[in-house]
Amino acid sequence: MKRLELAALYRDFTVYAAKEVTVCGWVKTIRDSKALGFIELNDGSTFKNLQVVFEESKINNFKEVTKFNVGSAVIVTGTVVLTPEAKQPYEIHAAQITLEGASTPDYPLQKKRHSLEFLRSISYLRPRTNTFNAVFRVRSVTAYAIHKFFNERGFVYAHTPLITASDCEGAGEMFRVTTLDPVNPPLTEDGRVDFSQDFFGKPANLTVSGQLEAECMAMAFGNVYTFGPTFRAEKSNTTRHAAEFWMVEPEMAFADLDDDMRIVQEMMKYVIRYVLDTCPDEMAFFNQFYDKELIARLESLVEADFAHVTYTEAIELLEQHKDQFEYPVFWGCDLQTEHERYLTEQIFKKPVFVTDYPREIKAFYMRLNDDQKTVAAMDLLVPGIGEIVGGSQREERLDVLLKSLEYFKLDPKDYSWYLDLRKYGGTKHCGFGLGFERLVMYMTGVSNIRDVLPFPRTTGSAEY
Amino acid sequence: MKRLELAALYRDFTVYAAKEVTVCGWVKTIRDSKALGFIELNDGSTFKNLQVVFEESKINNFKEVTKFNVGSAVIVTGTVVLTPEAKQPYEIHAAQITLEGASTPDYPLQKKRHSLEFLRSISYLRPRTNTFNAVFRVRSVTAYAIHKFFNERGFVYAHTPLITASDCEGAGEMFRVTTLDPVNPPLTEDGRVDFSQDFFGKPANLTVSGQLEAECMAMAFGNVYTFGPTFRAEKSNTTRHAAEFWMVEPEMAFADLDDDMRIVQEMMKYVIRYVLDTCPDEMAFFNQFYDKELIARLESLVEADFAHVTYTEAIELLEQHKDQFEYPVFWGCDLQTEHERYLTEQIFKKPVFVTDYPREIKAFYMRLNDDQKTVAAMDLLVPGIGEIVGGSQREERLDVLLKSLEYFKLDPKDYSWYLDLRKYGGTKHCGFGLGFERLVMYMTGVSNIRDVLPFPRTTGSAEY
Repeated sequence: MKRLELAALYRDFTVYAAKEVTVCGWVKTIRDSKALGFIELNDGSTFKNLQVVFEESKINNFKEVTKFNVGSAVIVTGTVVLTPEAKQPYEIHAAQITLEGASTPDYPLQKKRHSLEFLRSISYLRPRTNTFNAVFRVRSVTAYAIHKFFNERGFVYAHTPLITASDCEGAGEMFRVTTLDPVNPPLTEDGRVDFSQDFFGKPANLTVSGQLEAECMAMAFGNVYTFGPTFRAEKSNTTRHAAEFWMVEPEMAFADLDDDMRIVQEMMKYVIRYVLDTCPDEMAFFNQFYDKELIARLESLVEADFAHVTYTEAIELLEQHKDQFEYPVFWGCDLQTEHERYLTEQIFKKPVFVTDYPREIKAFYMRLNDDQKTVAAMDLLVPGIGEIVGGSQREERLDVLLKSLEYFKLDPKDYSWYLDLRKYGGTKHCGFGLGFERLVMYMTGVSNIRDVLPFPRTTGSAEY
Repeated sequence: MKRLELAALYRDFTVYAAKEVTVCGWVKTIRDSKALGFIELNDGSTFKNLQVVFEESKINNFKEVTKFNVGSAVIVTGTVVLTPEAKQPYEIHAAQITLEGASTPDYPLQKKRHSLEFLRSISYLRPRTNTFNAVFRVRSVTAYAIHKFFNERGFVYAHTPLITASDCEGAGEMFRVTTLDPVNPPLTEDGRVDFSQDFFGKPANLTVSGQLEAECMAMAFGNVYTFGPTFRAEKSNTTRHAAEFWMVEPEMAFADLDDDMRIVQEMMKYVIRYVLDTCPDEMAFFNQFYDKELIARLESLVEADFAHVTYTEAIELLEQHKDQFEYPVFWGCDLQTEHERYLTEQIFKKPVFVTDYPREIKAFYMRLNDDQKTVAAMDLLVPGIGEIVGGSQREERLDVLLKSLEYFKLDPKDYSWYLDLRKYGGTKHCGFGLGFERLVMYMTGVSNIRDVLPFPRTTGSAEY
């Protein structure tokens, strides 16, 4: 059997006009009247369906075919007939239709509108719906665009570890990884768990970020990026949090906060342009059914010169509109999503970098500015969502970094190798983190993180 | 500062001849005599070093520069001078050398040969050595080649979950993921751990394979692949096993074992060709220092028509040489590495697919052949290493799959959604798994898995 994928057929359908082809796929709808029937077929290679016309006079199992259930897998051999006046530019007139795998009348994805909540309860089937066919293809294309962007710029893709024995970044939010007996773990003399008998000889967790390891790699390769799963054991049941999600974390040596913002801007524009160009059908679908302003907003991001404002300036701007906000605005406050969205949507009306945040609301590794109050941090805010990227120039001065650990009450012993990077040819460097699911949500207009992850893991839920 | 990366300089060095450029990098070696000095500089953008010549009469801090330690980060501005008679085609004559970050005299990576064992003890610094600069760049390029290969063929990149609540595939070898109190976990009335109070409301583990979830995606998209971390809690302290490693797992609908072998062969040739073309310096280095036959072996793989033999035929062939082996050869035995290597190196002298293994030594989901004794499994064996890919056609027949679960003493209740895939338009389908580290070892001639993972996790070891 020489199978033709629908993506290839759509690409070159005029070449196949009046020719016989064999296609495989799943029945999305089927109907018939008298001696004529129609199957809408999808094979997953493209968002588009194909209309298959079958006639009692042309195939030898007409009656059987009319009884195929929605969801059945079929193999169709037939002639490509151009239909220039119809919505779809061609259809297939079947000469033979074979049942590859039957479906049952109780198949959950009958032709009707299903709620996203219902579809979440059948995650293993939902990729067959229009919405999830589009979401997961856009997710795949977005991932590829990210790899392509960094590869073209010579960045080395660094696989940083997921299991980590350092609990430096807030153990409370980390998952423990263990092979110890859960009921009767070995104990030390003073009654604590004897982790020396655990698999790694010490307590181990799932990482919350590959940044520190990426810095090691950047001090050898100059420009590197990670792209892999990351974990948070936060019990927050929101539409924006998952326990397992993917992050992109580039890290660049000999580069400062301006370089950081430049590469973020280039990356965002490149990735969005690539997806708009590669997935026009999927994006049109999202624009029609999920967010009427989606494509306009993405196109305008690609064209925009991103704005830049310091945190201090941003607070001054927001204070002029403080009656608009639920949360108070003052120098030293952590910006809330309402503040971020007001800045990017109302004040700047385009993507905006906010830089130089108060040190106390940011991480220990961010470079202290000369004012001794702020750090060289950077968040990118975009209309419709707020923060989408967070980054910083890293503290490369060993003495200042040691004081910063003290300031944040962290133990230098836990960071000896990280500190060593500053001893052995440390350089000015910077990096950022992009939450991949947040980007996919932004690209698709889908508003629940559970709907952009194929098999989402959240509090109380780890099905399949 | 307009910085030029060494990769760009090497690509177009004739364009920069006699021009002034600024480069950044780390001092690999430094020496001087009288009024003249030389720095070998590397910035990580390429495997190649750059020679910087500095003269007392040309720079204003000659004495200071001669005291720079190996490992220091420097910024050099100078003129590109072509040296057609020398080993390197050009050098830079410095007008200015600035210390960006000092190093110390005790910097561990002085110019001398270091053992791989020693370098493993400083994983955070070893990417700066020639070997690991080459290994991790080849790793990155190999990863990109894999994405490019599948993207060009329309495969959807599927992010299957790492945390899984199904313990169907041998809980003994899995890591438990938990947020319960390790000393005093909540207990049920009968004294067992009350996992309903754990983060996911049930016991959760780190996955050993994304295949079953990838099958869900293939039943929607046709062709998909995963590429992500996978885990094994095996306490085997060998050169080939890590607790955390990366796997590529494609899955294809409407495809059988022949299609499976075809795509494996195409992928292997594509990826190896891409790396040979993209990383000539790194590959020449491995060929010189790690395996003198490396490039010849890889080139011959790209040219070869892979052989194909059934397991039954393979056993017959091996039985003719049974005095060569430590482990006995008989129908029903699991092939050992010595058997695999004998087949591919001595008998076929090229890559060989072995198919149709006895069902009892393979997994429950592999398609039962008509002989009722063997399954449509497929391993690819390559010279120098043995098995590098393992795959199969999957059992799409619900009744046969149910019997297979029974045969392997597995509970159908644990597989209800997997079984449903056969109820709702199941199709003939197949897939395979490629251990990414094993491929990188094969590409580089590096023989310990700890040396192709940036931060390896093995029994008793999870540093950084």
